[in-house]
This record gives sequence, structure tokens and C-alpha cells, in this order.
Amino acid sequence: MLITPGNLLATINTPADLRRFDKTELPKVCDQLRQFIIDNVSVYGGHFGASLGVVELTVALHYVFNTPDDQLVWDVGHQAYGHKILTGRRDVFHTNRFYKGISGFPKRKESEYDTFGVGHSSTSISAALGMAVASKLEGNPLRQHIAVIGDGSMTAGEAFEGMNHAGATDANLLIVLNDNNMSIDPNVGALREYLTDITTSQTYNKVKGEIWNLLGKMDKLGKTAQELVSQIQTGIKGSLLEQSNLFESLNLRYFGPIDGHDIDHLTSVLEDLKQIPGPKLLHVLTVKGKGYGPAEKDQTKWHAPGLFDKVTGEIKKKVYDSPQPPKYQDVFGHTLVELAEQNAKVVGVTPAMPSGSSMNIMMKAMPDRAFDVGIAEQHAVTFSAGMATRGQVVFCNIYSTFMQRAYDQVVHDVCIQELPVIFCLDRAGFAGADGPTHHGAYDIAYMRCVPNMIVAAPMNEQELRNMMFTATSDEVQQGKRAFTIRYPRGEGVMPAWRTPLEKQEIGKGRLIQDGEGVAILTLGHIGNYAVEASANLAKEGIHPAHFDMRYVKPLDEALLHQIFTRFDRVLTVEDGCLMGGFGSAVLEFMAEHGYSAHVKRLGIPDAIIEHGEQIELHRECGFDPEGIASAVKELLYAGSKIVI
Amino acid sequence: MLITPGNLLATINTPADLRRFDKTELPKVCDQLRQFIIDNVSVYGGHFGASLGVVELTVALHYVFNTPDDQLVWDVGHQAYGHKILTGRRDVFHTNRFYKGISGFPKRKESEYDTFGVGHSSTSISAALGMAVASKLEGNPLRQHIAVIGDGSMTAGEAFEGMNHAGATDANLLIVLNDNNMSIDPNVGALREYLTDITTSQTYNKVKGEIWNLLGKMDKLGKTAQELVSQIQTGIKGSLLEQSNLFESLNLRYFGPIDGHDIDHLTSVLEDLKQIPGPKLLHVLTVKGKGYGPAEKDQTKWHAPGLFDKVTGEIKKKVYDSPQPPKYQDVFGHTLVELAEQNAKVVGVTPAMPSGSSMNIMMKAMPDRAFDVGIAEQHAVTFSAGMATRGQVVFCNIYSTFMQRAYDQVVHDVCIQELPVIFCLDRAGFAGADGPTHHGAYDIAYMRCVPNMIVAAPMNEQELRNMMFTATSDEVQQGKRAFTIRYPRGEGVMPAWRTPLEKQEIGKGRLIQDGEGVAILTLGHIGNYAVEASANLAKEGIHPAHFDMRYVKPLDEALLHQIFTRFDRVLTVEDGCLMGGFGSAVLEFMAEHGYSAHVKRLGIPDAIIEHGEQIELHRECGFDPEGIASAVKELLYAGSKIVI
Repeated sequence: MLITPGNLLATINTPADLRRFDKTELPKVCDQLRQFIIDNVSVYGGHFGASLGVVELTVALHYVFNTPDDQLVWDVGHQAYGHKILTGRRDVFHTNRFYKGISGFPKRKESEYDTFGVGHSSTSISAALGMAVASKLEGNPLRQHIAVIGDGSMTAGEAFEGMNHAGATDANLLIVLNDNNMSIDPNVGALREYLTDITTSQTYNKVKGEIWNLLGKMDKLGKTAQELVSQIQTGIKGSLLEQSNLFESLNLRYFGPIDGHDIDHLTSVLEDLKQIPGPKLLHVLTVKGKGYGPAEKDQTKWHAPGLFDKVTGEIKKKVYDSPQPPKYQDVFGHTLVELAEQNAKVVGVTPAMPSGSSMNIMMKAMPDRAFDVGIAEQHAVTFSAGMATRGQVVFCNIYSTFMQRAYDQVVHDVCIQELPVIFCLDRAGFAGADGPTHHGAYDIAYMRCVPNMIVAAPMNEQELRNMMFTATSDEVQQGKRAFTIRYPRGEGVMPAWRTPLEKQEIGKGRLIQDGEGVAILTLGHIGNYAVEASANLAKEGIHPAHFDMRYVKPLDEALLHQIFTRFDRVLTVEDGCLMGGFGSAVLEFMAEHGYSAHVKRLGIPDAIIEHGEQIELHRECGFDPEGIASAVKELLYAGSKIVI
Repeated sequence: MLITPGNLLATINTPADLRRFDKTELPKVCDQLRQFIIDNVSVYGGHFGASLGVVELTVALHYVFNTPDDQLVWDVGHQAYGHKILTGRRDVFHTNRFYKGISGFPKRKESEYDTFGVGHSSTSISAALGMAVASKLEGNPLRQHIAVIGDGSMTAGEAFEGMNHAGATDANLLIVLNDNNMSIDPNVGALREYLTDITTSQTYNKVKGEIWNLLGKMDKLGKTAQELVSQIQTGIKGSLLEQSNLFESLNLRYFGPIDGHDIDHLTSVLEDLKQIPGPKLLHVLTVKGKGYGPAEKDQTKWHAPGLFDKVTGEIKKKVYDSPQPPKYQDVFGHTLVELAEQNAKVVGVTPAMPSGSSMNIMMKAMPDRAFDVGIAEQHAVTFSAGMATRGQVVFCNIYSTFMQRAYDQVVHDVCIQELPVIFCLDRAGFAGADGPTHHGAYDIAYMRCVPNMIVAAPMNEQELRNMMFTATSDEVQQGKRAFTIRYPRGEGVMPAWRTPLEKQEIGKGRLIQDGEGVAILTLGHIGNYAVEASANLAKEGIHPAHFDMRYVKPLDEALLHQIFTRFDRVLTVEDGCLMGGFGSAVLEFMAEHGYSAHVKRLGIPDAIIEHGEQIELHRECGFDPEGIASAVKELLYAGSKIVI
């Protein structure tokens, strides 16, 4: 970035540079930071609205606190673009979310200012409390620890657990509640209503005024921090604030709400709060998309809009000559409505992902039968189990990576009880640009080991529809098994996807292409790569057989007996972790039934795979079409030694 | 049970029988129910204090509500003995927690009165809300749905998630907060302090008085439910109760606190609340162990005391002639203190299991460095991760079954970030009498598939100590890997267990006994069964080799190369699920390195294994010493066909 006169942002390479400015110059820094984000995201893509909403807060935090020694934790972290730009990553910011570029989330490996890696919500309070307790143990009780958490993230149980612990300590922790009334979709739940109430309540605003007056006076009198706190507490005693606030109930001193776009007031308040030891919460009101008109107006659309024309606000969409395959997400959404129209017992549950999962299609069509429960995966699963005890046919749609949050509920509330809840694991496999925190890498391993569980993965749209239909059948619903369907983020392969619904035989695989020499066994959408690989191999005269196994549990044992009787070279392909995954299930079958063969397994290795486009990551892991073709040849030309 | 004059309990076979009594007879029913529990638990064992504390509440709930049509969900469920006795299981109650007997927890298969299976905490609100929403969908909005949840369970995030959703609905849900100030150990956290505050606050008691006065008047005037509610709300308006209560903040109407041992008042209040639709919470104060002096005095000890003399209160302990091996739990606790004395960075974290895990030894010795965070596994792990970022060496001790609650935090906050948190998974394998909700069956599969993770299991006390010591070494702490040590509930094998601490080579197995024909590969304590099996086989002239692999990740590949070079018959033994477990890891090694052999894997099959003593369950699954010996013979006499 060229340093031109008046370009303050260009001179900020670390927050120390920022702190050299006079407070009166901060509005200008904010404007430039906001514009920099707009300039970049419009051209390179990424999350948008969240970072615009916290521009002033970001500048204020780094201005007031002594980062990186003071520990700043961003919850979720897609709002941390301003933070990244101010902490040495301005000139590489155009690589944000690209393969080998910087991460779209705070990441410890990337910067000492990224104190805690995030991506999933609601971890910040627990993490910052851990740091605060550690600071105390290491004899540094005055270090500041700040968790910035959105009102959406605040609904997840872990945030409550963190507050419950924090409130019982004297840890030096500031929770900044960034209240913009949104998750990706509008925030829901009782807490949301409560936050709106206290924001608009005259009583609260009166008390708020009293506090700040008090703080102002203290400041002038030059009292010490401890006296200040004591006097504030006395001032508050007897007023409505005592036990009158959810956060105060948890023994967190509550301050606010204040305007999160008033940089001057924000810095003053944070400076005051720095003097107050112990756990406390500052309620800051912000507008998601602030400063960019279209984003303020349609906040869900502008959460991560893709590329756009920053002048007109037009979101750029690719134009195609021919009909394109739909997203699996939309196939899920429309098929769910079809099933619900046929069966009055069908209901849908999503934890805060109505637009991401396309559950919003059903929420619009049948608002009484589709439930957005907020960021609350644990509750989503147990709530689904509760409905299933009463005979409802529940589609509980949770991203694969977020299902890790509800694993115990899957085991304890669903499978042990033999309840036929249907889990749709969206974004299974690599999530893409969101990176390792969001990859759905482990679900095959962690779901298949649980009893009373069916685990399936569709190779295309028709398969997804038929698996969903099959899951609603009496065989499953009376059969006391949960039914997991995992599918990736993004498009399928069938432009004409609205096929008739047909029940599948559970656990039955299918032959895609017969052949010789090598059998390729695939699970799910990744099977299309094997189709491509086979087509290319055919040009070289190599004709492997290809089986879409469809179900990793139960395995199609009849088909596997045929395969291992005919083939002694077998390749398994999955977009999940190799340890304990689909390929391992095939090895278990072999061990149980006494087969031996050369078996090669392709999938996600035992390593954290970073962000990038899905195909880039598949290539990195060796299971893109070229990787599959190479593996077939490797097997084919393997020596005559019989190996498994 | 003989029906003798005055024995009311003997005439109650279902709650309908209970409801035939006059209200004035309920105290007598309570006395007899309490005595029945004391009589039984003193002789047959089981949980004790929790059920005594809710005798009156149990009788009142079944008296007032139309169970089983009204849906009653007990959180955790170890307090549901009275419920079981009143709902048809009085005469089989002596089989409680025994192999093939009734379960110690509510269980759907056992009774239609057990609407939701429990064991883990904090699921009841979500489950009952699911039922309430289903009732509405099926056109039965007046059905009652009651979740009985303890103050300890209320600290777990899922309870908060459930309340946040419930408060935004009009579901017909009553949450009964059974406040006895305890988990198994005394309850901790800010919520605990808050509940104590409102219980002792004059303001609250005044408001409480107003409400009940109001309810009383309503009752006499015979108003309809809706009018009643509206009038109550008006009566409360302007009073401190508006937004003055944590639960009211979440839009749950709050009633209480009331005395949970006053059966007359309890039934009146519940009858009133039955008239009030929508989500609401009744705060009931109870005493854990109520009615049995010693249990009221030492509530942790009497949570599940084992057998005792009901007259003297003396807890019966087995007397041994010779020194016995310690529990793994105590070895953990004492060794942690040893390590903490040597290394100032060592800290301990437990989610509400200080006595169960023996973390209380460190909490007593070094109160500033051992943290009970309440029932909050998610927070416990992220809090540990936060401390680890600041260089603390964190032992986070969580029961294997409860770690399912924090799986996402293990992946997202620890392993992706390469933080060297040490996880001690207590009660891995079969939990015993607690049954399937508490078995630690899946941890090998779900932990080993996560990158940057070491997974170990000690075969004896010395091994546990050395693994703990190894986990604190620079190699691990600087090596960016988490370290999981899983061990079972109960005694080890070394009476002289306080061995010198020695660092292990990570991922290095060891030869226990050389032999021929068959190699037995074991992981963890279960290896002692293989020692026993080998000794018995030796009498028949069969001498298998036995290797204690110690680490399932990383596997000892050098040792495995030796084993598969020498042996073509291999038996793996683990006390974890076979799908994706230790044996599967061995198969993966074979596939990667081109070995073939007859491999038989022993472990937990793909089924829900019920409760019983550990050895009974091991036998059922075929990996007790006899099962292992049989498997060795089976392998030895297997045909010459090479199978894997």
C-alpha cells in the first residue's frame, strides 16, 4: 500500500502505530479501514457484513489495549478482517481465504495477535478466561483479556458455561457483547428478545447514564481503580441494576448498552473499563454491514456475498449457457418440503443455519414445522430426539463440522434410545475457503462407530432425494435406527434433479461401471471424480470397475463378497479422514470374512488440511480425478505379492 | 411386597393408584417411599442421596399430573428411584443396577413412564420441549410436559440452550429446578451463587408471597387459566420481578423458591401451575439425602455410598488380608500432585467430578492450581486450551463418556491449534452398573481420527504414572500434540504402585511375554486379561506371544513390522468399540504395509451393551480371560487359508 498524504491506514503496520495517532484521528482511520475492507472483499470475496460492523470496535480495542500482550479473542472470527489488517496483514489481505493465502479466521500460526484460533462460535469466553487465569498464575494479574462475542454466539451453551465459571472468579476478563441482532440469519430465542428489551428500556438507559456519570466523576477525582469499583458498586446498590440483569445474575458487572459506531465514546468507555478488575461485560450495539448501504439493508445476503460491484452494489453471478446442477443444499430444502407435504409427521430443525442449509425453504413453506433453534447444536439434537419420541419424523440438519458439538447427544439421546432421527450432515468433506475449522473431515469415523446408526452419502441429487425419502420410510422410522446422510457443500451433477422419489434398499450399493483389474469403491459425491478418472483411464486402455457403495453403515456385504471374490486390487475413495473411515470399514469387512487383496485407501490424511477451493484440497490429498487415476495404475502395476 | 394394613406403598402399582389417595395421606406415602429406598439401597447399593431428596417432589408430580400421558422427564435420572418404585417397578427394584436387572436410570425400553432415557445431565429441558412442540403439532396443546432438573445440571450449556429456545415458544413446558446445592460434589459457579442469593433475598421472598397470594385468590374466584395468567402478569408488572430474574430474562415465568419437602404445598403449587400455559419454571428447594441423617450431613459421600447398615449408618467396606491395588483414579490424583510439585506449570481441570476423578486430591493440596468448572465439559476443554496457549501444562480429566460432550472443542480448540492439552479419560471402557449411557465405548475411535493427537492407555498403575509424566515432557509440550490417556474405572493390579516416574518413548509398545503361533496385541488395562489367558493356555501347552501396544496413536510401527514378519495369526484386544478402534488401526497398518495374516479383533461389538459388573460385560462381549483364550485357540486352529 502506498503511503500517500492523509492515508493513515498505510502507516499502520502494527497496533503500536495506531496508538501513536491522536484520538481525534481515529474516525479517519475507521473510514479508511472500512473502505479497505469494501475494496478488498468486493474484488476478492469473503465475509463482509460482520467485519464492517466492528470497524470502530476493532480500532478502539487495539487503540486502548496493549495488544498483543493484552489478549484479544474474537469469537467465530469472520468479523476480524479489520483486526487482521491492523495487525500486519494489510498487504497480504488480498490472499484472504485463497489456497496458501491467509486464513479468513484468526489463527495462532499466522500472527501473535491471533491469540486463539476460531471459526466455530462461542469459544471466546472460555478461552479468554483460561488465559486470564494463566496470567494470574504466572504473576501477571493486570494483563487484560478481552473476548469479543456476538449476540448470536451468546446463545450457544458453551458461552453460558464460560460466563458461569468467569462470574465465580476474580479473573481480569472483559466480555464485549457485540450485539447486532444477527447470526448469519436473524438471531432467535429468548435471549435475543431480552437484549432488545434492555436496549430499549428506559430504566436501563437511566442506570447506564448513572454509571457513566459516576465513571466520569471518578476519572476527574483521580481515584484508584479499587476505589472506583467500590464507589460504582455503592452507586449501583439499591438501584434496579442489582440482580436486575441476566449478566449481573451471573456475577458479571454489566455496562451498556453503548453505540458501537461512536469511536470516541467507545475508546473512553474501554479506557474506563481497563481500570476495573474482575469479570465484566460491555454491551455494544452495532449494525452488521455498517457503512455499506446494501449490506445494512439485507444482512443475511451480505454476510458473505461473493464478489460484487462496490459502486452499484450488484452481486456478480456467473452466467451459464446451459442449465447447471443445483446445490445439494437446495435439493435438500425442496425435497424436505415435498416429503413434508406427503407426510404430516415430517418436521425440520436447524441450529442457526436456515439460509446456509436451505432449511429456510421449509421455514417459509411450513413455518410451524421447521425450527431454527439458534446456535445450539446440542439442543437441536436432543430437541429432535424429544420430538421423535412422540412420533415426529425429524430432519435435523447440521453441518458436519458443527455436529462435533452434538456428538454426545447423538450417542446418548438418539442412538442409545433407538430413536429414528434423520441427520443431514451438510458440508461434509472439505468446506473450502473456510478452512480446517469448518472441514467436515471426521464424521464418517465418529458416526459409524455408534450403534443403531445408518450412515449414507449420496453421489448425486437423485441419490440425496432417495436417501431422504428412504429415511422417512416405516422401515427406518419403526426400525429404531438413526439415519445420517452426509453431503458436500456446493453443486451436484444433475441439472434435471427433480427425479421421482424412490425408496432405496438400506445398505445396498450399486455398480456404476463394470471393469477389470481394479475395483474402485467410492462413497458419496466424490464418486463423480472416479467416473472422470475412469473415463480418462479408458483412453489408456485401463478399465477399472467402479462401485458406489452409498452406505458405509450398514456395508453392502453381499456386494463386497462379490467384489473381493473377483478383484484382488481394490481402491477405496472417500472425502473423510482415513483413520477409522470408509476404507477402514472395508478393511474390517475383509478381516472378518478372510479376504486378502491389495487395498489402497484414498481420503483425508492424518493432518490438518488448510483452506482453499475444494478441488485444490482434494488434489493436495491425492483424491482428485488425477490422484484416483494414479492410484488405480499404482495398484494395477503393483507386484504380485498379495497384500491387504 | 405384602399388602399389610397401613402399608400404602404396597397398594401403588401405578400412579393411578397413588391418585386415588386423599391428599392428607400423601405424607404417609412419602415416609414409606423414603423408607423403601433406604431399605433397598442399604442392602443392594445404588445412588442414594438424590432420590431421598426428591421423595415429596416425586409423589407430588405423579399425584398432580396425569402420567404417563403427561410427559415427565428426569434430568440425569439417578434421582428417579421413587419414580421407578411408583411406576410399576417396586417389586423388581432389588434388581436395580444388577446385570439383567432394571436400570439405575429412566429408560424408555423399561417403562412408558420413562419418557426419555437419561444418564448424562442437562438434556431434560430440550427433550421435554421437543415433546411439548410435538404435542402441539399433533393437536394436543394441553398435554403437560415437565422437566425436573437439578441446579448442578443447570450449569451445563445445553440447559441454557434449551431455556433460550423454550422462552421464545408458547410450549406447555414446566421446568422444575430441583435446587439442592449439589452436583455429586458441591455445586460451583456464578449460577450457584445467584440461586443462593434469590433463595435468601427478602425482595424475592416478598414477590414470591405476592404471587402465591394472587394465585390463591384466582383459585377462589374460579377464573380461567388465561385470565389468571394475565392477572398474575399485571400483578407483577412494576414490581421488581419484571426482568429482575435470570429465568424471567429468558422469558420463563419464574415461581418460587418453595420448600420441596412440604408435600401439601408442593401439590397445591403444581396444581396451580398446571393451569398456566406456556413455558415456566418452578424453583424447589430440597436437601440431598433428606430423611437419612448421615446422608444429609455428608452429601458427597452418600451420593452413592455402596452398601451400608441403615441403623448405624456404617458404610460396609470389604476387608482384605493383603495390600490391594489402588484405583486408577487415586493413582491419577496422587501422581498429578507429584507432577505439580515438580513443575509449576502443571494445573488440573475437572468438570464437576472432583471426587469421582480424584482431582480433589490436587484441589486440596493446591487449590489455586486445580479447577472444578461445574458440569461444563465444553468449557472445561476450551478453558484448558486457553491456559495451554499461555504455557500451562493442563491435565483436563473428563470421563470418557462425558468427553463426547466436548468433542468439537477437542478438535477445534485443541488439536487444530496444536495445543498440548493432556486429556485423562477416566472410566474408559465399560462403566459397569451405570450402564450404556456411561460406558466409555467410543473414545478410541473418535479420538484417534483427530490429527495432532496422541492416544495412550496404561496396562497398570506404573504405566499410568509414566504416561502422565511423559505427557508433561518437553517433547509433548513443545511438540504441538494433545495427549490422551484412557483408563478404566476401578482398581489396577499393583499394590506397590508408587513407582519412580520414567519418561516413555511416545508410541512405543512393549513385549509382555514372548511366544509362538499367535500374537496377542492389547491396549490398556484389559491386557491383564491376556496375561491371565496366557497363563491358562500355558497349562494346555499353548504359548501365545503378548504385546502391550500402549499407544494406539502413534502406533509402534517398528514393533508391528516385527510382529507381522513373525506371526500370521494375530489377535487384537481392546475395551472399546470394534468399529474404527485399536484393531482397525492395526488393519490400517497392515493395508499400508502389505501384510496379510489371520486377524481376529476382540472388543465392544456394534450394539448397545447394558449395565452390569465390568467383568460380566467383558464376558458378554467375549473379551474376558476365557474369551481371549478361546480366540487364541480359534486362531491357532484356523485353516491354512491366509486371511487378514
